[in-house]
Amino acid sequence: MENDTLRVAIVGATGYTGAELLRLLLVHPRVSVEIICGRSHVGEPVSRVLPNFTGRISSVFEAFDPDRVAAKCNVAFCALPHGASAEIVRALRSRGIVTFDLSADFRLKNLEIYRQWYGEHQAPDLIGEACYGLVEFHRDALRTANLIAVPGCYPTATSLALVPLLKEKLIRHEGIVVDAKSGVSGAGRSPTASTHLPEAAGGIRAYKSAGAHRHIPEIEATLSAAAGTDIRITFTPHLAPMTRGILSTCYGDAVNETITAEQCTGAARALYAQSASVVVLDPGAHPDTLWTKGSNRAHLSYAVDPRTRKVIAQATIDNLIKGAAGQAIQCMNVRFDFAESLGLESLAPWP
Amino acid sequence: MENDTLRVAIVGATGYTGAELLRLLLVHPRVSVEIICGRSHVGEPVSRVLPNFTGRISSVFEAFDPDRVAAKCNVAFCALPHGASAEIVRALRSRGIVTFDLSADFRLKNLEIYRQWYGEHQAPDLIGEACYGLVEFHRDALRTANLIAVPGCYPTATSLALVPLLKEKLIRHEGIVVDAKSGVSGAGRSPTASTHLPEAAGGIRAYKSAGAHRHIPEIEATLSAAAGTDIRITFTPHLAPMTRGILSTCYGDAVNETITAEQCTGAARALYAQSASVVVLDPGAHPDTLWTKGSNRAHLSYAVDPRTRKVIAQATIDNLIKGAAGQAIQCMNVRFDFAESLGLESLAPWP
Amino acid sequence: MENDTLRVAIVGATGYTGAELLRLLLVHPRVSVEIICGRSHVGEPVSRVLPNFTGRISSVFEAFDPDRVAAKCNVAFCALPHGASAEIVRALRSRGIVTFDLSADFRLKNLEIYRQWYGEHQAPDLIGEACYGLVEFHRDALRTANLIAVPGCYPTATSLALVPLLKEKLIRHEGIVVDAKSGVSGAGRSPTASTHLPEAAGGIRAYKSAGAHRHIPEIEATLSAAAGTDIRITFTPHLAPMTRGILSTCYGDAVNETITAEQCTGAARALYAQSASVVVLDPGAHPDTLWTKGSNRAHLSYAVDPRTRKVIAQATIDNLIKGAAGQAIQCMNVRFDFAESLGLESLAPWP
Amino acid sequence: MENDTLRVAIVGATGYTGAELLRLLLVHPRVSVEIICGRSHVGEPVSRVLPNFTGRISSVFEAFDPDRVAAKCNVAFCALPHGASAEIVRALRSRGIVTFDLSADFRLKNLEIYRQWYGEHQAPDLIGEACYGLVEFHRDALRTANLIAVPGCYPTATSLALVPLLKEKLIRHEGIVVDAKSGVSGAGRSPTASTHLPEAAGGIRAYKSAGAHRHIPEIEATLSAAAGTDIRITFTPHLAPMTRGILSTCYGDAVNETITAEQCTGAARALYAQSASVVVLDPGAHPDTLWTKGSNRAHLSYAVDPRTRKVIAQATIDNLIKGAAGQAIQCMNVRFDFAESLGLESLAPWP
Repeated sequence: MENDTLRVAIVGATGYTGAELLRLLLVHPRVSVEIICGRSHVGEPVSRVLPNFTGRISSVFEAFDPDRVAAKCNVAFCALPHGASAEIVRALRSRGIVTFDLSADFRLKNLEIYRQWYGEHQAPDLIGEACYGLVEFHRDALRTANLIAVPGCYPTATSLALVPLLKEKLIRHEGIVVDAKSGVSGAGRSPTASTHLPEAAGGIRAYKSAGAHRHIPEIEATLSAAAGTDIRITFTPHLAPMTRGILSTCYGDAVNETITAEQCTGAARALYAQSASVVVLDPGAHPDTLWTKGSNRAHLSYAVDPRTRKVIAQATIDNLIKGAAGQAIQCMNVRFDFAESLGLESLAPWP
Repeated sequence: MENDTLRVAIVGATGYTGAELLRLLLVHPRVSVEIICGRSHVGEPVSRVLPNFTGRISSVFEAFDPDRVAAKCNVAFCALPHGASAEIVRALRSRGIVTFDLSADFRLKNLEIYRQWYGEHQAPDLIGEACYGLVEFHRDALRTANLIAVPGCYPTATSLALVPLLKEKLIRHEGIVVDAKSGVSGAGRSPTASTHLPEAAGGIRAYKSAGAHRHIPEIEATLSAAAGTDIRITFTPHLAPMTRGILSTCYGDAVNETITAEQCTGAARALYAQSASVVVLDPGAHPDTLWTKGSNRAHLSYAVDPRTRKVIAQATIDNLIKGAAGQAIQCMNVRFDFAESLGLESLAPWP
Repeated sequence: MENDTLRVAIVGATGYTGAELLRLLLVHPRVSVEIICGRSHVGEPVSRVLPNFTGRISSVFEAFDPDRVAAKCNVAFCALPHGASAEIVRALRSRGIVTFDLSADFRLKNLEIYRQWYGEHQAPDLIGEACYGLVEFHRDALRTANLIAVPGCYPTATSLALVPLLKEKLIRHEGIVVDAKSGVSGAGRSPTASTHLPEAAGGIRAYKSAGAHRHIPEIEATLSAAAGTDIRITFTPHLAPMTRGILSTCYGDAVNETITAEQCTGAARALYAQSASVVVLDPGAHPDTLWTKGSNRAHLSYAVDPRTRKVIAQATIDNLIKGAAGQAIQCMNVRFDFAESLGLESLAPWP
Repeated sequence: MENDTLRVAIVGATGYTGAELLRLLLVHPRVSVEIICGRSHVGEPVSRVLPNFTGRISSVFEAFDPDRVAAKCNVAFCALPHGASAEIVRALRSRGIVTFDLSADFRLKNLEIYRQWYGEHQAPDLIGEACYGLVEFHRDALRTANLIAVPGCYPTATSLALVPLLKEKLIRHEGIVVDAKSGVSGAGRSPTASTHLPEAAGGIRAYKSAGAHRHIPEIEATLSAAAGTDIRITFTPHLAPMTRGILSTCYGDAVNETITAEQCTGAARALYAQSASVVVLDPGAHPDTLWTKGSNRAHLSYAVDPRTRKVIAQATIDNLIKGAAGQAIQCMNVRFDFAESLGLESLAPWP
């Protein structure tokens, strides 16, 4: 191990996000994965739980032991459910470990809003320290952050699509509608009726509509910061009959009659000029989640309906990569001054 | 054949809609299918082109001959592309055949609007005769109609969802957004890159956004009639990775702060009280296209976002049945005074 | 209710097979569904558990009460797991109710073989009374049977394909290989890791290979009866990424160099000449499970490899219909002297 | 560009295999892609045809010009249909370019057999020079080869599964059955009825059964070499409703009563001890194509049916990677003495 190789622990590696973290970190040239924790499978070979690793690693899942992590690692990724994450993060931070948390626990700066949506916070004192890891908007802060709150999948896609429009005042603040479609892996690894293939593979449906999804405050925080005023959105997530991918179709009212798709596209291209992970398609193009599946990339596009002056902003990402594990590693790259796409260069294995 | 059995011709039976017409009419107790036309396969056994009929019928596809149709039939269904349909319809109508046309040619009453979206009309003189076949709204007119324009799939789902809200003045006229998701069978039977399984099965994408889809004027005509004023919508169709089904997720602004999901649900239940094909789910439910797939039924639901006062109206149908062939037969049932659901009783073979 | 309408109870109606029984029986012209039992959902509306019934029936699931069934019904269908079924069947039979059992409990005549594969039998005294309900082979016995053991899905497809070859001595008794592919609904309604969409929708895999699947003795019993000697098969079931359908690809050695696909096809056509549910395709055709999905039909085809003299026999069915609920109703039609396809006329809603 | 970087041309880069070659070669540390040819799209940006490359490369497709290739490149990959490939390969070889041909043109050493299955050969004089690129069996020959015939997808999966059994004389030579299941991408990029999503996504079917598939002689050549005698197989390919992946389920007769799954597994593990791309699972495991999808890996497993003494050998690969583009690069790595897995380290992005 070189001196400048990061020694990494993954906590909560038995789920889909953890599996992707492990897959990507294993081939990252500046990382050595030292510890793989998974409390539901302690002592079991990783490859029995994550079959794509068969024949590649012989590690077993460990129980989380912060002292052991501190002895062997200087970086940790936590892929745990909200609530469960906060105390693990505290244990890691108190030992000086740079921590990338993929839960919702440190994404919201406003404790009161956190409580409304998630219940009591387990480590409110750490909120101030956390840096929100939507890399394209927080690069500078990330360079010195030691606790990084990696964004949710819907907030990533939706914010990437809408922030340029709000920053450049191309759409109004009121009345924004976000109609999002997600693959079923976004629901996690626990089998349920709604993810059972026979009931999920042949149809499409909304869920948690009408202001019920917990990603709303996270999206609104980013949009409000971009707009410089409070934004409220109408957000409807849908479960699409596919494994991976998010498409966020966003609707806003053009601020005046003259706004064009070219202007919106131009605003996004300017904002993301330094962002290799974000591709802004030509005006009127229709990004397909398949084009980004398996990659750390976002595809955006903009159109304006000439009959109604609605701006339609679309974004696609892979929910497990740019929407979770890949973005966490992108944060790590910025934090440690590596090339931002290091280890994340793979394009989507299309089709 | 009983005296009161309808003798039916199907013109354009080689596509998916034609196949569903044939399947449903074959077991309809008051129908005898006499002629099956399919110009691309004249002389070929039906079962070689439509494999589900193997061993069930020995008919071959015929070329369309209006005199032969007139000699053998008193009813015809046309499942042809727009433009191609108008002249066939003229030939049928001039021979006194009651005609159910599944193309777009006679759906729009306004010839100028037809021209804008479809080009020159081939039989403008027949437009006046045509009755729009969205059964739930046009039962009385259908009873005496001889040329029935069977609605498109998106207009059926979208209109069923939104008409109760507009009729009862629960949402505003401006700013309605319709985000629709369709299975790939809606694109027809001709193989294309965008329907090629490897490029269509693993992702979701919009198409013809920003006011480009030809179903817009049809939807707007129905909504405008319900509202009593001109309505313009923003409509974004998406191709979902599945074969059948449409989900229309519709967004409108509640006219005031007090509108509830219960009110919306009540309005729809009142409007559809006599409509066995339309089921209004409880407030906040999320209909799944799978629940209606294979049936002639629509599932609707209503929610109100308490944070933004948007009304979210959802509708699911099977695009080939309630969105095409089934609705055509439902029109026929009303026209000939049969029970409205005769031959259409089958529920979705779920899952 | 007419005098000659059957009054039916469905026991175990909350699963997929029960749902299909209910769907098909509701529109069967000679049946009135009187009682719907589902022990996991007693008191709940059927339509909350089986969403395709929403707006169609208002019944609630009942607990099973044999006296109540006897008071209201003369026929029962049991769609319960093996083991759980035997005692329910005893309660029904002891009250004189004609019982169609869809479990494995009464399919095997040999008690010792039952024990090897399923464990202790709960009602061995009733085995003698049971008639195996593979209609195409047991019509005469079914007419007077009061306990009918409805076959499994794999045995139905596989036996239909192979019996003509064995009866006509076209293939050898040794070395038969059955490579079967099933949709995921065959695994039932309980969510598990192996049926979780993200892990089941993007790949194909075998399961229970090497003589481990419990349908083997059932298939072998039918094949042995046809051959007049003991047959042992190699059976490998696979889980295909789809909801419904079984394709059984069967391999046998032609008994001599002169056997042709035409001979095999002819043998099958002769055997199934009176069987509207079984369609024998032309030699060398490749049946697709999609062509039979949603119908009570089986598609068969035969080929002979000229290089190796292997006979390839293929069969497709819908596992929930011809492989379960539809076949049970077909048995009922034969038992009560209705037209064999009554209520089962619907062809596959293709595509 | 370093001195020791290979300068590569890809000929036929508009199809799925070409797209995967480009994706993998772009991030290969020892390769510079200099020329991208695609005759159907000359002059068009690569990213318009292969949407996953949007924002990553600005190259356009070129027409094939052997002199230009020779001036800029020392290595070429040809991903053209058989027949079309031979003359391109001749042009490349005559200019001294090391050529990896992914067509069938140089896979068969026996010209007469080539003619039987493919018709006249366009460059029979080059057959002798070609090295068959199933890396695991031909490493030594590959090190000095200048024309490499990259194997087909079915031959790769099937040969990897069966060669250990034949080499170690664990199964008989006669009666081998290969029942293979492929994703639809194996049919290429041209849309057809059989790959049209509505007709391909909801079912499974065989195609080209009974000795009709052109991969048969290629498989038999490899198996015969392993067995030391002529082998004939019965091969049935199936189209499974998924984009990528091949599962080859192979059946052979154990040579005697004592052969165990452990023996078969041991034989394979010994043979593939140096092969990082091949993973032999524990006896009785069931590899899923999903576990290898997106990677250059093969998963194998072995079972023995104790009732029939059939050995069941299973292999899964990604048909576009280990079955095409990845294997070609693996060949290149061996040929140029790079680490065999260089640039191919990515595991399957599971799920």
